[in-house]
Amino acid sequence: MQSVKPYINDNKNRFITELIELLKIPSISADSAYKTDVLTTADMIKTSLEKAGCDHVEICETEGYPIVYGEKMIDKNLPTVLVYGHYDVQPPDPLNLWNSPPFEPVIQNTDLHPEGAIFARGACDDKGQMYMHVKALEYMTSQNELPCNVKFMIEGEEEVGSVNLSKFVKANREKLANDVILISDTGMIAKDVPSITTGLRGLSYVEVEVTGPNRDLHSGLYGGAVANPINVLAKMIASLHDDNNHITIPGFYDKVEELSAEERAEMAKAPFSLEDYKKALDIDAVYGEKGYSTNERNSIRPTLDVNGIWGGYTGEGAKTVIASKAYAKISMRLVPHQDWHEITALFKSHFENIAPAGVKVKVTPHHGGQGYVTPINHVGYKAASKAYEQTFGKVPIPQRSGGSIPIVSLFEQELNSKTILMGFGLDSDAIHSPNEHFGIWNYLKGIETIPWFYKYFTEMNA
Amino acid sequence: MQSVKPYINDNKNRFITELIELLKIPSISADSAYKTDVLTTADMIKTSLEKAGCDHVEICETEGYPIVYGEKMIDKNLPTVLVYGHYDVQPPDPLNLWNSPPFEPVIQNTDLHPEGAIFARGACDDKGQMYMHVKALEYMTSQNELPCNVKFMIEGEEEVGSVNLSKFVKANREKLANDVILISDTGMIAKDVPSITTGLRGLSYVEVEVTGPNRDLHSGLYGGAVANPINVLAKMIASLHDDNNHITIPGFYDKVEELSAEERAEMAKAPFSLEDYKKALDIDAVYGEKGYSTNERNSIRPTLDVNGIWGGYTGEGAKTVIASKAYAKISMRLVPHQDWHEITALFKSHFENIAPAGVKVKVTPHHGGQGYVTPINHVGYKAASKAYEQTFGKVPIPQRSGGSIPIVSLFEQELNSKTILMGFGLDSDAIHSPNEHFGIWNYLKGIETIPWFYKYFTEMNA
Repeated sequence: MQSVKPYINDNKNRFITELIELLKIPSISADSAYKTDVLTTADMIKTSLEKAGCDHVEICETEGYPIVYGEKMIDKNLPTVLVYGHYDVQPPDPLNLWNSPPFEPVIQNTDLHPEGAIFARGACDDKGQMYMHVKALEYMTSQNELPCNVKFMIEGEEEVGSVNLSKFVKANREKLANDVILISDTGMIAKDVPSITTGLRGLSYVEVEVTGPNRDLHSGLYGGAVANPINVLAKMIASLHDDNNHITIPGFYDKVEELSAEERAEMAKAPFSLEDYKKALDIDAVYGEKGYSTNERNSIRPTLDVNGIWGGYTGEGAKTVIASKAYAKISMRLVPHQDWHEITALFKSHFENIAPAGVKVKVTPHHGGQGYVTPINHVGYKAASKAYEQTFGKVPIPQRSGGSIPIVSLFEQELNSKTILMGFGLDSDAIHSPNEHFGIWNYLKGIETIPWFYKYFTEMNA
Repeated sequence: MQSVKPYINDNKNRFITELIELLKIPSISADSAYKTDVLTTADMIKTSLEKAGCDHVEICETEGYPIVYGEKMIDKNLPTVLVYGHYDVQPPDPLNLWNSPPFEPVIQNTDLHPEGAIFARGACDDKGQMYMHVKALEYMTSQNELPCNVKFMIEGEEEVGSVNLSKFVKANREKLANDVILISDTGMIAKDVPSITTGLRGLSYVEVEVTGPNRDLHSGLYGGAVANPINVLAKMIASLHDDNNHITIPGFYDKVEELSAEERAEMAKAPFSLEDYKKALDIDAVYGEKGYSTNERNSIRPTLDVNGIWGGYTGEGAKTVIASKAYAKISMRLVPHQDWHEITALFKSHFENIAPAGVKVKVTPHHGGQGYVTPINHVGYKAASKAYEQTFGKVPIPQRSGGSIPIVSLFEQELNSKTILMGFGLDSDAIHSPNEHFGIWNYLKGIETIPWFYKYFTEMNA
């Protein structure tokens, strides 16, 4: 295969313009107000797959948002790559912290991105990274360089738990049959330090409600004499970690995979500057489980974080009230071998147990997913590694990510294939945050690297 | 003086209708959207005082909402009673918990109020109780039964800290000169157990902000590796009470007045059913400082309660975010001798001290006020006691309230006079809560009792 660079140079402005059009549509799956936009986005993906060379593309309806399926089958005897991505995005709030509106994409230069970065919700997660695959396919079909079969499965509910995708996968095992799954929905260590994600954390997401008195009360007349649901919730949340920041839920760590000293030493070789990390977040110290480094804390260790809390009077000024109810959204990131159903059950039972007399507690599971690991001796990993080496001039580092793509473990279970996580984003891309962006260099580098994966994967499977 | 009852019987429908008109105006001082309504209410109070027989009434402008001042001076040599009340009300939220709109008053019968109760925000606190004094004045002037001088000072910022009233009082000592101050803004033990409030708790109200990373972060990529401001805030709040529910702020209890065993035994005689209390609030247990009874916990002991908390994603569904900031509104109820400025400073310093590395903490004081005690041998207390005996047929019980009327200690300091707290509300009136109401029996009983206070107070001062 010849260099992909000339084609990219000739077409890069169009590649950027097409992505910007996609980013203009607020495909927020969590908020039903954006239903039409989510559906419009699905149609745009369908059209883009057709234009990129798929022989067959269809919108597969589900009970929620549709899945866009596309394929180009060139020879049954050749291997098949299944590309997964998502066209939905996270809610953009808090809106006031965005420097430009989240659905009016702008290109700005930054220190890390002197070539410019596209600022918009979904720029990196996952419209930008998903669209790299569409453009890589365009390259391969237009240049007659597609060496194997390819299938696309792009969903619209990744940010809300992929419930309908699970059903779709279970019901379409044959249609989705493949030799390897390829996903770009993760990051790499740095622009000059390519890496491939070999592990994902699982997730258990729950909502809790603490009810005290049956109505809001005057804090002067009742304060100190009845359980205040907010104070109680704070105490319950606080008790979920001990002084060493270990999680106190009984049984929580029972199945946690403990890495060997060698594996931890290997991990510690990845370039990392604690000073730069703190500076980027404007914090004076990191914080986490005792006995583990920052990189270990957010990859090989399970965690518990409150993602939202509310109760009582939160408006302007003061109100002397004891609220009847207080709420929190809590998520746990899990590591391989922790089963999210089991952890959700452990959390629920523990949280109900620690409720003091005087309050009632309700725990509602939201969604979750299992963790996942790709062995670095898998042929797909080796092909990806060689592809990065080709375009970056360096062997990529295998790394565990702290994030979760719950569907990946389901793919393994239902489709019996491993997933290769070729992410081209950076930690600083602010995904799920205001001012999400994706470097144009990264976007084009992804488009350049992906065709080499197809080439090497096909060769290695020959 | 003859019985007040016949006059009340002849006029009660008008008394109720007039109060209902007043309750229709949403005079919410905490929310600037209601500015016009608050000002309209001040005008209505002015008109009502003129109609009730004041010789001189004026709207006294302040930097905030105006104070309505009225007087009827009959003889310089006779004693002067200063009536204080407020025409502003608490915000009505949460609106969805009201059975009828908060500013569309309705009369409903309840178990405790077979004669009917008026349901509306401000029905008891304080429009209803304040208006009893206007109607008692009407009775006394129309029947030629006013035995002394009277002044009214009705403010519109009690629910937001009475900041401008403080300035007004300091600047108008002569105009406000009096022999006793009379307030109805508290409750009594039960309809058949009259009581006079002899103590009020002080208040310190603060807002806290915990900042972690400089932006919202993806909880998968950063979870477990940086301080989560919500988890940290929960931990900090939890640490403010120990296992016995004592407040842990160093120095907090240093000046707390400890009651003698005799005084506590006297308090314990007040009728109280813990079962009824729990049933009314639908709780299975009370909760509070070890070593004290429920009635002690909410009257003679200081407390610390979170009145509101918020941070992160609080919308529908799930968002896996580590918030940059978390907030809480916290109030402390104080007992006599605890200085609110000092307690606010102790809180601020302690809360800043306990912040772990990795977060920044900001404490903003909102407002506060000192506690207050009326001695039961004061002539005003004795006159009030005799008035209740006259109309209830029982000697009232002196009781400490858990609530705060911060301005009362300022009155003592600036005007050198004691305040008599003749409250006619009940604990079940749901002040500051949805479905606030005021019993018609209580309203009319207040109008009946107040003129006797004037009579006995004047006689005892002769």
